[in-house]
This record gives sequence, C-alpha cells and structure tokens, in this order.
Amino acid sequence: MFREKIKVLDCTIRDGGLMNNHQFDDRFVRAVYKALSEAGVDYMEIGYKNSKKLFSPDKFGKWKFCDDNDILKIIDGIESNTKISIMVDVDRVDIDDVKPAGESPVSMIRVASYVQDIDKAIFLVNHFAEKGYETTVNIMAISRALDNELNEALHQLEEECKAQVIYIVDSFGALYQETTEFLVKKFKSILKTKEVGMHAHNNQQLAFCNTIEAIIHNANFMDATIYGIGRAAGNCPLELLIGFLKNPKFDIRPILDVISNEFIPLSSQLESGYIIPYAISGMFNEHPKAAMALRQSDKKENYREFYESIVSASMD
Amino acid sequence: MFREKIKVLDCTIRDGGLMNNHQFDDRFVRAVYKALSEAGVDYMEIGYKNSKKLFSPDKFGKWKFCDDNDILKIIDGIESNTKISIMVDVDRVDIDDVKPAGESPVSMIRVASYVQDIDKAIFLVNHFAEKGYETTVNIMAISRALDNELNEALHQLEEECKAQVIYIVDSFGALYQETTEFLVKKFKSILKTKEVGMHAHNNQQLAFCNTIEAIIHNANFMDATIYGIGRAAGNCPLELLIGFLKNPKFDIRPILDVISNEFIPLSSQLESGYIIPYAISGMFNEHPKAAMALRQSDKKENYREFYESIVSASMD
Repeated sequence: MFREKIKVLDCTIRDGGLMNNHQFDDRFVRAVYKALSEAGVDYMEIGYKNSKKLFSPDKFGKWKFCDDNDILKIIDGIESNTKISIMVDVDRVDIDDVKPAGESPVSMIRVASYVQDIDKAIFLVNHFAEKGYETTVNIMAISRALDNELNEALHQLEEECKAQVIYIVDSFGALYQETTEFLVKKFKSILKTKEVGMHAHNNQQLAFCNTIEAIIHNANFMDATIYGIGRAAGNCPLELLIGFLKNPKFDIRPILDVISNEFIPLSSQLESGYIIPYAISGMFNEHPKAAMALRQSDKKENYREFYESIVSASMD
Repeated sequence: MFREKIKVLDCTIRDGGLMNNHQFDDRFVRAVYKALSEAGVDYMEIGYKNSKKLFSPDKFGKWKFCDDNDILKIIDGIESNTKISIMVDVDRVDIDDVKPAGESPVSMIRVASYVQDIDKAIFLVNHFAEKGYETTVNIMAISRALDNELNEALHQLEEECKAQVIYIVDSFGALYQETTEFLVKKFKSILKTKEVGMHAHNNQQLAFCNTIEAIIHNANFMDATIYGIGRAAGNCPLELLIGFLKNPKFDIRPILDVISNEFIPLSSQLESGYIIPYAISGMFNEHPKAAMALRQSDKKENYREFYESIVSASMD
C-alpha cells in the first residue's frame, strides 16, 4: 500500500516561527525533535538562515538565524535518524554564513523563491550543493504564478539547477485539488530528473487534501507540521499525513504525545487553524498578512467588514 | 463556471443538535434560518422527526421531534426561498405524525438508513412521497458498507424507490478523496434517474475536500453546516462551500455575519472541529462515540491512551 520513496519533512518550528518571531525555547524545540525522531519523520526544518546584517537578533529568536551551535544544542543526546533542514530566502541569506556540509549539523537547505527570482534561487542552490548539502527549491505563491513564466522556470530548474526536489508552495491556501493535480502533473512532466514536493497551507481546510492529491499524482516530498500549526491557518497536520501514509517506518504515537503535552498548552498562546479571515484570504488568493493584522486588532471577529475590504481591494 | 443543478442543504441545526440533545433555542434557530434565507441556501434541515413514544420531550429539545407548529414559529415573518427539510431514522419515526405536505411547512424528508435497512428506508420514502414531500435516502456509515450489499441496495433504490436524491454519508469521517471518487462514480452508474448527494464529516479535515470531490464527479446535492459545526468533528463548512461554488445565487455575507454574532460565542459551549480523538476515529473508520465520551472525561487530552484503546479494540 505505501510508496517507499515518499519523504516527510516536518516544518513546525520553521513555519510556526512565522507566528512568534521564531522565539520557541530550546526545551520546546528539543521536545519536537525527540518526537519527530521517535516517529521516524525524515526531516525536521528548524528555521531560516537569515543574514544578521538584515535582521537583528535582538528582535527575533534564534530560529530566524539557525546558527550551527544553536542546532547542536537541540540535537545533543537525542538518538535520531531525522535529518535537519533549514530554509533560506532569496536575497536574505549571507552565503558565507553557511559552512561546508561536513562541518554542519544541517543536511538539507531549501531555497524559497518566487517564480520571478528563479535565477537567484538556482545560484544559491548550486552554491549550497557544491558545499555538500541536499537542496530543494520551494516555489512560493504558486497560485499566482503565470503559466508561461512557471513553465520557463521549471525548464530552467531541470536544466541548470542541482536541487533534488522542487516544491509547489501554496502560500495563500488558495488551491483546490483540481489545480494541485494540474500543477503536479506539469511539474512531473518537465522535471524528469527531480522529485516534486508539496507544501500546503490550510486556509480552506484543504492542506491535507492537497497533500494527498499531490501524493496521488506522484509527488514524493511532503511538508507537514505537528497539529497543523504554522503561519496563519497553518499547514498539513503531520499526524493526519502519517495516518494516511500507512508506511510502517512511521509511528504516530510520539506525535500524539507531543501534541497532548506541548501543542495543546501552546494553542492558547499561538493562534493557528481554521479562522474565517484566513479562509477569506484563501478564497481570494491573497497573502494572509491583512488577516493576520485583523486578528491582532479589536475587530478580529468582524468578518463581513474584512470580506468587504478584500473585495474592494481586489477591485481597485 | 458554476453548475446550476447543484443544491446546497444546510444541516447546522440537525447535525449540530446531536451535540446538545437538540436544545437550540428559537432565537438562535431563527438567526440561522434568516442567514440561510438571505444567503440563498436551498434547504435548511432543522432536525429529526422522532416518535415521542421512543424519546421523551423532557430529555430532548424540540428539534428531535420537529412538530410543524414549532417550525412555523421559526419561519414566521422571515422572507425566504429556503425550503425546510427534516430527517427521519428508520425504526424511530411514527409515520402518522407526518401530515400531508400541503398542510406542513416541511418540503423535504430525508430518510437516514444503513445499507442493511434499505427495504425499510424505501418503504418510508415511498410513503412520504405519496404524501407529497421531496424525499432522499441518506446511506449512513458508507465507509463500512460491503461492496456487494451496496450494489444491491443501489439497484433497489433505482428500481423501487421514489427518492429524488441518494446521499453518500461519511458518518465516520473516514473517506479520502479516492474512495469518494469511487463511490460517486458507482452511485452515478447505477442511479440513472436520481441525483447523488454528499454528506461529509470532518474528522480528518477532509469534509470540504470530499464535498468538492463529489462535485467534480457530478454529485449535485451537497450538505454543509455553518462554521462546520456538527457531531464530533463536524461537517463541511458552508462558508467554504459557498466560496468554492461561485454561483451568483449565493451570498456569503449573511453567513459571515451569523458566524461572528452567533457561532463564535457558541463555540465556547459546543465543542466541534479538529480534535485529535475524532481524527483517530476517522483514521480507524470508527464511530466517534468513544471519542465523544473521552471528550466528556478528565482524560480528554490523553491521545496516546485513546489511540491504544482503539488499536486494541480493532484487534479483539
């Protein structure tokens, strides 16, 4: 029943960090790493590697920078086959901060890029690949990519880029399964030598659905987060994905434990999940930042006014 | 883009009533009816018609019995094209309680039945059809139906039953979209003269996904509930379905208002949504009653123990 090539990457700390300025404390991050290791999850993405010249460590937690020493403190003493991944954004990383893979606890570097920045992404990926890392390109905001530009980017990635995996990133939680099918088939048809990945957001309760849809059409790298936390509406819940995959290498029980012990208490502080303004953002294929601002205001439950503001903005 | 034949049935009060013994007060039910009417929703299912010989009105709210007079008090003075539906369970209805359609505010009667009770369901449907009602059969627990028995039941329904619509009911929230596709295609291939409906539960965050999947394969009657409330994990959220359908006859704004004003306050009293024990029930294709009992106990967040109990039970 299961497909051995499928790899699961947990990005709880990285994507969830977008909701708390990457301020998760070491105890919590170690609990997540331990649970993922015991569950047999293939990769844990722990944060971003941003340049400290661009962002101040006074304002952001350590998982916006992912110093190797900070990662070593998390993994120390925990038995694990789970590889560590970090994400870099085009134009925000200082490549000299990245040591050769042999000197780092990091196994994989994922480069997040919009379609129009694909040349920069290819440059970064090839640089990190030279340093010995596994690499991916994660094409953000795919629901807004123009078809001709996306096609050109995919051909470039196939021909010029050393990344093993190219991800579809539904940043706005706007995809329905028909479009996911269309995109995965397109990616597979052009990217003959690479794997396809899926990173879904849950604005319309379709993150798990779109992840399954990608699996059906032969994508093999799947992102998920524990309890579905992540920016705004969050992501595909890891526990649902493991339940679906039926792969004997995974054990859901450590994930259930860490949800009981860590994520239920966390949910009173870090809002994520099915929330109407995020659903509206998804319906309109909009970035969730306006909805995130609304949720910080005293109009947080004023859905109609928010809806009208999105309608008006899209008509301007 | 839209398919005119698609009809949306809201079952907020009926399915949600399974979480509070059908105790919604008139003010709340009128607010729901008004919102659905303004939104252009085709049907509102207001409750069950159970025999008072079997259930005591002292223990249950009025929406377990749906007296015509109680319904008339709800709809009085509200301009509406939304038709009223009620549900009956096989073996729980006293058919003499049901007046001819011309004397009742009810337009549609839906008969809920397991595959093995299909003869009883056909009898009831044909009786209600004689009385002038629109009728449906809702095949519950479809994820446990044996294929040969289901095939036989569908042929009987096609040949002997006056119901206009036959529903797939994913009572346990166990379906993935591949099985939904399989079932809708099967229903469509046998039920040449009837419409197919979908009633999904949201244990694994797939109620909306499976509803879309049913639409893709030409099911035309879709159940949903406001904010997704309903038994256990709840149902397909109406607001997401309306956002997807793009049918100009629907207006999402009255639904957004009633969520802000009624359902956000309600959510602190009536638990429904993405809750791990319900997700586990869905994964194991189990009735949610054990999970519902857990949520009433002091072990409500003890997910691993619950998981082990379900695993053990399924091995006994």
